[in-house]
Amino acid sequence: MTKSIAILGASGYTGGELVRLISTHPDMRITALTGERKAGQPMAQVFPFLRHLDLPDLCRIEEVDFSAIDLAFCALPHATSQAVIKTLPRDLKIVDLSADFRLRDVAEYEKWYGKPHAAPELQAEAVYGLTEFYREEIRAARLVAGTGCNAATGLYILRPLVEAGCIDLDRIILDLKCGVSGAGRALKENLLHAELSEGTQAYAVGGTHRHLGEFDQELSLVAGRDLRIGFTPHLLPMNRGILATAWLDGDAREIHEVLHARYCAESMIHLLPFGTTPSTHDVRGSNFVHIGVVGDRVPGRALVVAALDNLCKGSSGQAVQNANLMLGLDESSGLMGAPLFP
Amino acid sequence: MTKSIAILGASGYTGGELVRLISTHPDMRITALTGERKAGQPMAQVFPFLRHLDLPDLCRIEEVDFSAIDLAFCALPHATSQAVIKTLPRDLKIVDLSADFRLRDVAEYEKWYGKPHAAPELQAEAVYGLTEFYREEIRAARLVAGTGCNAATGLYILRPLVEAGCIDLDRIILDLKCGVSGAGRALKENLLHAELSEGTQAYAVGGTHRHLGEFDQELSLVAGRDLRIGFTPHLLPMNRGILATAWLDGDAREIHEVLHARYCAESMIHLLPFGTTPSTHDVRGSNFVHIGVVGDRVPGRALVVAALDNLCKGSSGQAVQNANLMLGLDESSGLMGAPLFP
Amino acid sequence: MTKSIAILGASGYTGGELVRLISTHPDMRITALTGERKAGQPMAQVFPFLRHLDLPDLCRIEEVDFSAIDLAFCALPHATSQAVIKTLPRDLKIVDLSADFRLRDVAEYEKWYGKPHAAPELQAEAVYGLTEFYREEIRAARLVAGTGCNAATGLYILRPLVEAGCIDLDRIILDLKCGVSGAGRALKENLLHAELSEGTQAYAVGGTHRHLGEFDQELSLVAGRDLRIGFTPHLLPMNRGILATAWLDGDAREIHEVLHARYCAESMIHLLPFGTTPSTHDVRGSNFVHIGVVGDRVPGRALVVAALDNLCKGSSGQAVQNANLMLGLDESSGLMGAPLFP
Amino acid sequence: MTKSIAILGASGYTGGELVRLISTHPDMRITALTGERKAGQPMAQVFPFLRHLDLPDLCRIEEVDFSAIDLAFCALPHATSQAVIKTLPRDLKIVDLSADFRLRDVAEYEKWYGKPHAAPELQAEAVYGLTEFYREEIRAARLVAGTGCNAATGLYILRPLVEAGCIDLDRIILDLKCGVSGAGRALKENLLHAELSEGTQAYAVGGTHRHLGEFDQELSLVAGRDLRIGFTPHLLPMNRGILATAWLDGDAREIHEVLHARYCAESMIHLLPFGTTPSTHDVRGSNFVHIGVVGDRVPGRALVVAALDNLCKGSSGQAVQNANLMLGLDESSGLMGAPLFP
Repeated sequence: MTKSIAILGASGYTGGELVRLISTHPDMRITALTGERKAGQPMAQVFPFLRHLDLPDLCRIEEVDFSAIDLAFCALPHATSQAVIKTLPRDLKIVDLSADFRLRDVAEYEKWYGKPHAAPELQAEAVYGLTEFYREEIRAARLVAGTGCNAATGLYILRPLVEAGCIDLDRIILDLKCGVSGAGRALKENLLHAELSEGTQAYAVGGTHRHLGEFDQELSLVAGRDLRIGFTPHLLPMNRGILATAWLDGDAREIHEVLHARYCAESMIHLLPFGTTPSTHDVRGSNFVHIGVVGDRVPGRALVVAALDNLCKGSSGQAVQNANLMLGLDESSGLMGAPLFP
Repeated sequence: MTKSIAILGASGYTGGELVRLISTHPDMRITALTGERKAGQPMAQVFPFLRHLDLPDLCRIEEVDFSAIDLAFCALPHATSQAVIKTLPRDLKIVDLSADFRLRDVAEYEKWYGKPHAAPELQAEAVYGLTEFYREEIRAARLVAGTGCNAATGLYILRPLVEAGCIDLDRIILDLKCGVSGAGRALKENLLHAELSEGTQAYAVGGTHRHLGEFDQELSLVAGRDLRIGFTPHLLPMNRGILATAWLDGDAREIHEVLHARYCAESMIHLLPFGTTPSTHDVRGSNFVHIGVVGDRVPGRALVVAALDNLCKGSSGQAVQNANLMLGLDESSGLMGAPLFP
Repeated sequence: MTKSIAILGASGYTGGELVRLISTHPDMRITALTGERKAGQPMAQVFPFLRHLDLPDLCRIEEVDFSAIDLAFCALPHATSQAVIKTLPRDLKIVDLSADFRLRDVAEYEKWYGKPHAAPELQAEAVYGLTEFYREEIRAARLVAGTGCNAATGLYILRPLVEAGCIDLDRIILDLKCGVSGAGRALKENLLHAELSEGTQAYAVGGTHRHLGEFDQELSLVAGRDLRIGFTPHLLPMNRGILATAWLDGDAREIHEVLHARYCAESMIHLLPFGTTPSTHDVRGSNFVHIGVVGDRVPGRALVVAALDNLCKGSSGQAVQNANLMLGLDESSGLMGAPLFP
Repeated sequence: MTKSIAILGASGYTGGELVRLISTHPDMRITALTGERKAGQPMAQVFPFLRHLDLPDLCRIEEVDFSAIDLAFCALPHATSQAVIKTLPRDLKIVDLSADFRLRDVAEYEKWYGKPHAAPELQAEAVYGLTEFYREEIRAARLVAGTGCNAATGLYILRPLVEAGCIDLDRIILDLKCGVSGAGRALKENLLHAELSEGTQAYAVGGTHRHLGEFDQELSLVAGRDLRIGFTPHLLPMNRGILATAWLDGDAREIHEVLHARYCAESMIHLLPFGTTPSTHDVRGSNFVHIGVVGDRVPGRALVVAALDNLCKGSSGQAVQNANLMLGLDESSGLMGAPLFP
């Protein structure tokens, strides 16, 4: 039976990506789209690339009749999500794409986001949305917190390896290369084409990127002790894609085997043949993750590289995958579209 | 019933795009993929972006059992198509993506392509694959010749207007802006990233672009007399997309009305509100065409701009659309995926 | 003797480009840089690419001692220039890069810019800064108005041809392709990398682009009657460069000869061999203009294509060239740097 | 007195960059340009961006009268350099830009380049061209071997730190992000715009990149023992620029001080304020290096990031700087041009 879907905050990139994915989903139908500043506008005006679709106009959140909604995606800005979700019906299934419910410990939230958590009572029921690691909890959840896109990319490499104990936990370095859409549709000088194209730089250096809160949480959990990885993202002149390069102390073959065992049954995560590494080109626009493992010329050192599309598997695609689970649908429904190349 | 599909020449961009589109087509299944130089290789090696699919390895054309094939897409280089298609079973349905069967008059073929037509007996039965204008012929055809991507973009603007006689036929100017994938996967200096990114230039200037043969053919046909438009393409630093800017002498409102009447029932072609023009961003990766009409400050002059994705609606998507017709399937089956934005 | 230079509005792209050019100019030294919002900041913070230079910090305009300044470049936003220049000493040499003094007829200014001219008394003495056509006037001028970058590109093609009367004046079409830096450092959604890269679109369609005021003025002047060209710019995914494609009715060989005669003695303007056309790649970062002429297959039709760097020859380089004249320096001083390729 | 310069192999990117730099050099004049496959062609045809210059046509090496040459730049492909330089006059000053004379130990050359060294007798006199570390040797040298561009970027970070002993020598990780021009003008599928733009990937993984031979040589030298860093380059969708991210175990403040002491007197190398990191945008087209140091949230870990332009400071600019020394000219002559931004 077709599920009725609302998207709150549909005028940003993750909102547009949700509409794109759901537009060919066999069991979902969009019945409400909200956008506070653009309420009243047709989606074809906000996103002309969606012109071919028959969609409801953007409205304000308070205009939505949530009794008719099976599940709401919440693609609102950070902090707004906590405020809004508090006001929604307590039995409404929600997938939140913001950072507002990712950190189980509200003190950690306050540390990383600089303000007190506005909905600690909801935090308790929120499930961290890294599908392949919380599948059963997500299936049963009412509120799922989508992961950070950088965090997801890194965790796909690190969680199984930390759990298996096959790498030196105090020597984990994660060097990320990120496309610009991860920063959203914000009007900032450094996101202008003229400032960004044809060059690259690091950002959020020194262990200050907020997604580190997620790494701390998830990796300390499986390590059974506090774990602090080195993590620096770099902004690249491309729109979509994250490439995570993990520099690890461990046996590369063993690492490959651990990842193989962990992911061989997963439809979305593809481990490449040993010795080869992925390209973001090959996952763009898709819900797939490509992971490669290489041994260094110095024995005992390994390189693991993962690629995904930040807007899809790193955000909106993950959200649809989790929604499928929450709604009792086939997990990969609507998500098997091939990447766009070139 | 699922149709069995072969793709001849599957290692180029249009071949990869065909696989991408068919991978989510409900009624087609790929049973053979050929590539002479890469025969024996798995597609995941030739195109890692297709890694998630269960596909046959590339083989040589003579290894294909065509008796089990319902339709073959022929994505071979120009000139090779004529030679190969001559050798295929005469009852095999074929959609050819090359330039080899686009020009009905074999003398025109020789003029534009510089060599005699190698299969004139097949040319006679070939239908020009501009779907919205040859739908019934395509439905009945055995051999359909896919259009040039530039030609398609321009013809979507010009054919209805020439037919309606609402523009000055001797004053048609078509200034094209093309992404680089239209040039294929050829190893040429001017297609290198370092030579192409961050700049632009005209090419095939002076009325020498081969797609002019198609404009001559199609527009003279509807005009009832020889018609020679001005046409210059420009190479842009982007991978997909064609933007055609038509400078016309005519009444802009009337032009908009003619195009509206012609396309209002078409699912793939979207006429924008009067006074607005399209962006290639909004059709990338899709089978849609966006067309906009604007009046100039000087009365009697109009601008019509059309955008499509050269690899999809301009080539492989058009091919699938035509194959749907030839196989008795729903015409838009597998082709309603939304564009990828950003 | 070294000339003392002030740059008003040094925090935008044209301001940064002025500093770049002057940094290796043998006879100019920057003694004041202003930026209202960023006053007090060192230039290395505003533009880290200028870190190697010993420059004054940004200050407010009223802090500048103009008695010590030989010439001021005014790179302020449109409308601000008129207000500021009115307050400057009446004997100060000024090159204005804004649109504020380009149109001799203040009624035309009001028509195109939507507000009354704020300094009509200064307009009377302003010289239009298209160097190769107003060289003597510029040499004697106190106030020179830099041209629009699009206008300059088109006028380099059209002014000699209109003057020579070798083209049909009522059939001039100018299709422009522009890099994004021409839009300045403004925070607009359509200038974000994610919205702009990998696609193209027309803008200011229908004869609404403000640079048309300059075309009207300059071409009507030489034609001796009102002349209205067709003109549409397109935004391209590149940072620098304008490619102007002029579609003309005229004899291509004659056009080439007229342009040759007009430009053969010019050091900055290079006419390509007949039948070839330029690329913006080949002028990027330089003060050169490349122009090519091609005949169409239809006799009597010609294509002329010009390429320049909008920030350099189209704006700041032109400004330095004019300043050289005004200061009695060698006209090409500091401007002979080769383009950056790739 | 003006020095007479030959450029052997002038049709590649480093050759073109040499011409660009020398075109505004006050004390150098190009008197010979060679290119085997393009002999007889004018440079304006090979590189239209050099059209404004009065240059000799390309010729074959044997046509050059070396008795009139003060210094030859050798921008030939790897392996060709050894063969050619052997045939040149033994008293000709040469700056070689290839990899052929970078490794002092010819066994190391054979190991990394897979063939025996063809000119071991010349290797003995070759000086490694990292200017700031071999300045006096270069001044006295006849044959200088330009460094690898990746090696230069990394060594600017690491050489002083290894020498100072302020970092853990067994824990050095260097994650590089490289623009595509570093791969030269080679016709390879992965260098096509359509394969490269809008994505990224690692290459030469597992410690196989040939520039590791230079890191081994230079760092082991200053460490006084064998030293093997972790090093992986990534190909980015940009034409120029290298960003090297060094992950180090050491005190960030101390590292900053060591680098400050080492570089404060250098005109080309700029250390950023502590806690900030560079962008390749800010050095593009220039001979400058920007280096930044940041402390991690985990005490004892530091991040050092360096940016340079691979074609300029990483190759041709370095070559001119070394040639200046060899010819007794001012070291920075012709090299103080500001970067191109945007």
